[in-house]
Amino acid sequence: MASLGHVLPQTLHFADPLPLRSGAQLRDYTLVYETYGRLNADKSNAVLVCHALNASHHVAGTYEGQDKSEGWWDNLIGPGKPLDTDRFFVIGINNPGSCFGSTGPMHQNAETGRVYGADFPVVTVQDWVDAQARVLDHLGIAQLAGVLGGSLGGMQALDWSLRYPERMRHCIAIATAPSLSAQNIAFNEVARRAIITDPDFHGGHFYQHGVVPKRGLRVARMIGHITYLSDDVMEEKFGRQMRAAELGYTTQDIEFQIESYLRYQGDKFSEYFDANTYLLITRALDYFDPASEHGGDLSRTFASARCKYLLASFTTDWRFSPARSREIVKALLDNKRDVSYAEIAAPHGHDAFLLDDPRYHGVLKAYFARMAGEFQ
Amino acid sequence: MASLGHVLPQTLHFADPLPLRSGAQLRDYTLVYETYGRLNADKSNAVLVCHALNASHHVAGTYEGQDKSEGWWDNLIGPGKPLDTDRFFVIGINNPGSCFGSTGPMHQNAETGRVYGADFPVVTVQDWVDAQARVLDHLGIAQLAGVLGGSLGGMQALDWSLRYPERMRHCIAIATAPSLSAQNIAFNEVARRAIITDPDFHGGHFYQHGVVPKRGLRVARMIGHITYLSDDVMEEKFGRQMRAAELGYTTQDIEFQIESYLRYQGDKFSEYFDANTYLLITRALDYFDPASEHGGDLSRTFASARCKYLLASFTTDWRFSPARSREIVKALLDNKRDVSYAEIAAPHGHDAFLLDDPRYHGVLKAYFARMAGEFQ
Repeated sequence: MASLGHVLPQTLHFADPLPLRSGAQLRDYTLVYETYGRLNADKSNAVLVCHALNASHHVAGTYEGQDKSEGWWDNLIGPGKPLDTDRFFVIGINNPGSCFGSTGPMHQNAETGRVYGADFPVVTVQDWVDAQARVLDHLGIAQLAGVLGGSLGGMQALDWSLRYPERMRHCIAIATAPSLSAQNIAFNEVARRAIITDPDFHGGHFYQHGVVPKRGLRVARMIGHITYLSDDVMEEKFGRQMRAAELGYTTQDIEFQIESYLRYQGDKFSEYFDANTYLLITRALDYFDPASEHGGDLSRTFASARCKYLLASFTTDWRFSPARSREIVKALLDNKRDVSYAEIAAPHGHDAFLLDDPRYHGVLKAYFARMAGEFQ
Repeated sequence: MASLGHVLPQTLHFADPLPLRSGAQLRDYTLVYETYGRLNADKSNAVLVCHALNASHHVAGTYEGQDKSEGWWDNLIGPGKPLDTDRFFVIGINNPGSCFGSTGPMHQNAETGRVYGADFPVVTVQDWVDAQARVLDHLGIAQLAGVLGGSLGGMQALDWSLRYPERMRHCIAIATAPSLSAQNIAFNEVARRAIITDPDFHGGHFYQHGVVPKRGLRVARMIGHITYLSDDVMEEKFGRQMRAAELGYTTQDIEFQIESYLRYQGDKFSEYFDANTYLLITRALDYFDPASEHGGDLSRTFASARCKYLLASFTTDWRFSPARSREIVKALLDNKRDVSYAEIAAPHGHDAFLLDDPRYHGVLKAYFARMAGEFQ
C-alpha cells in the first residue's frame, strides 16, 4: 500500500480568546495541524480526525529524515487506504492542553510570563471541538464530509455531531462511550494520584524545578496499558513467560515477561509525555457526559443529531465495551437517525481501534467509499 | 446470629528453621494463630482457614475492649454459622512475611540484629503451607477435616491438598485460580512499582529512615480495590455521582464520589499495611503455579489429590473468574475426584467471597453440615 510520504505540520495562532466550559478563557494560543490530500473545489471532501490521549495532529505520513515517524493512524489513512487521501482531504489537529505542539501546560502563559504548569485551564471535549471548529473556519470549510475518532477521539466526533449538526454529514465514532463508567474514572484517578503524589510533581510546577515526575508517569502508563489490552491478548502474548530459566525469588526485580513489557512502556512514556497534559486529558475523559444536560436521557441528547453515523466497537474491549456503543446506537435509533453499527470480533481489546484488522478496516473502507460517492 | 464473642491470639515460637522454596531458610520465627470451638476427642473436627493479602489469623470473633474488631470472616464462622464452631474446631494462622503478628519484614532478624526490611526471605504459598503444618503438629492434629480459603487463601487450600494429601479430608477453595494470568501479574507489578519507586521506600529499608512509603501503598491499594469490585457494583454504588452540585474543573481535587472512596481506602491502608509485606504477598500470588512442576498439565498436577473438594466462584469476579475455577474442576474430574462446584450469580466481583450472599453461604453451610456428619 502506498504511503502518504512526507508531511509537514502547520501552525495557526489565535489572538481571540477561546471561551472554555469552566468559565475561564484560553488566550493567545497556537494550534498545530496537518492536512493530507486535496480539498476539492466546493470544499465538500474534508474529514476531521480527532485524537485520543497519547496522540496528536500527526495522524498519517512520515516526517522527512525521521525514522519510524509514521502518524498514529497511518494504517488507515493514505492513497488507496480505507480513508483514501486521493478522494478525501484529511485534517488532524492537536488539541490545546496536549504536549505535542499546540499550546499546553509546558508553554509560557503570555499573561504572566511564566510557564502554565498546573495553571493551564481545565479543558473539556467541548472546548476541543470549539477549537477545532476555528481551524476549519480558517480553512474555509463550512461543512465537513465527516468527523472520525476512536476512544476519546470518538467522544469528540459525537460532540461535533451534537453541537455542530449543520457542519458535518457523517460521524464515525470507534470504540467509544457516551460517558465514562465509575470503573473508567477509577483507573484515571489512580493514574492521576500516582503523578500528583510523585514528589517531583511539585503541585504541577515541576518545570521550574528542572525535574519531571517520571515515577508517577510510569505507573500511570502501566495502568493505562493494562486497560488497553484484553485479558486474552495479554495471556497469548505473555502468559506466565519468565524472563530467566530459573526463578530469581525477588520482589523488586523482573521475573515475568509481562513485567518487563510494562516497565518498558512506562519508561518510554515518561521520557516524552507531559504530566500536566496527562491530568488534563484524563479529566476531559471523566467530564464528557452530554446526557447530563438532558437529565441523563441519552435519547433526548441525540435529538439534535442530524448527520449519519457509523459506530464500531470490539468484542474484547473492556475499557469501552460494545455495550457502551450500543447505548449510543439505541439513542440514535430512538431518534430515527441513520446509523450503521459494527461489532467486531477482535482479540486486541481497546487497542484494536488502532490496528488493521481486515474486518474492521473493511467496514471503514466501505463506509468511506459510500461517503465519497456523495460528493463526486 | 450469635457471635463467637471475645477471642485471644496465641503465639508459637519455632527454633527449627523453616526451609523455603528459594533455598533460603526462615530462622527463629514466631507464628500467631487463633482457634475457635473445641477440638474433639479424636481430633477429627479441625478446619484450617487460610488468609489472603489483607487478612490474618484473626478470622472470627472480636477482641475485648476493641470496637469493630470482628475477624475478617466473622459472617461465616461462629456458633450456628455456616462453619459452625459448635461442631468444628477452627484454626487461623498468620503467615510468615505478613504484618499482623507473625514474623515479618518489620521484625528484627535475629542473625543480624537489624530489621529485616527488604532482606526478609521471599516466601511462597508452599512455604506458608509448610509453616501452617508445623502449627498443626504442635496442636497434635494429624488430619484436618478440611482446609478452607478464598483467593490467595484458596491457593493455599489447593496446595495443602496436593502436598499433604493424607492430612486432610476436604479442600474448600473459593474464588481462586490455579495460577495468576498475565493480567493479574500486571496489576501486581504496577502496585509493586508504585511502592518501590516511592522515594520513602529506600530500597525496602525505610524503617531505619523513620518513614513509610505511603504514596506507593495508597496507589497500590487503589489499584487493588478496582480489581476487587465488579464494574457493575462500582457503577451501582458510585456511577458518575459528583461530590458537589457543580463541577469544580480541577484535575487535582475530587470531583466524583468514586475518587473520594478510592482515596479513603488508599489512605486507610497506608496507615497500617507494611510495604515489604505487600511486595512479598503479591509475589507469592505471582509464583503460585503447581502445574509448572507437571509440564503445565493441570490434570497431571491433581493426580496426587486424595481429598474431596468444594470449589465456588462468582459470576462477576473478573480478577479470579469462574473460568479459572472451572479449570481446577476439570482437572479434578479428569482424575475422578469427588468435586462439588458452585458458580454463584453475585454482583460484587472478587469481594463476594467475603460477603454473606445467602446462596453462597447456603452452599457452604450445606457442605460443612455434610462434613460434620462424617465425624459425629
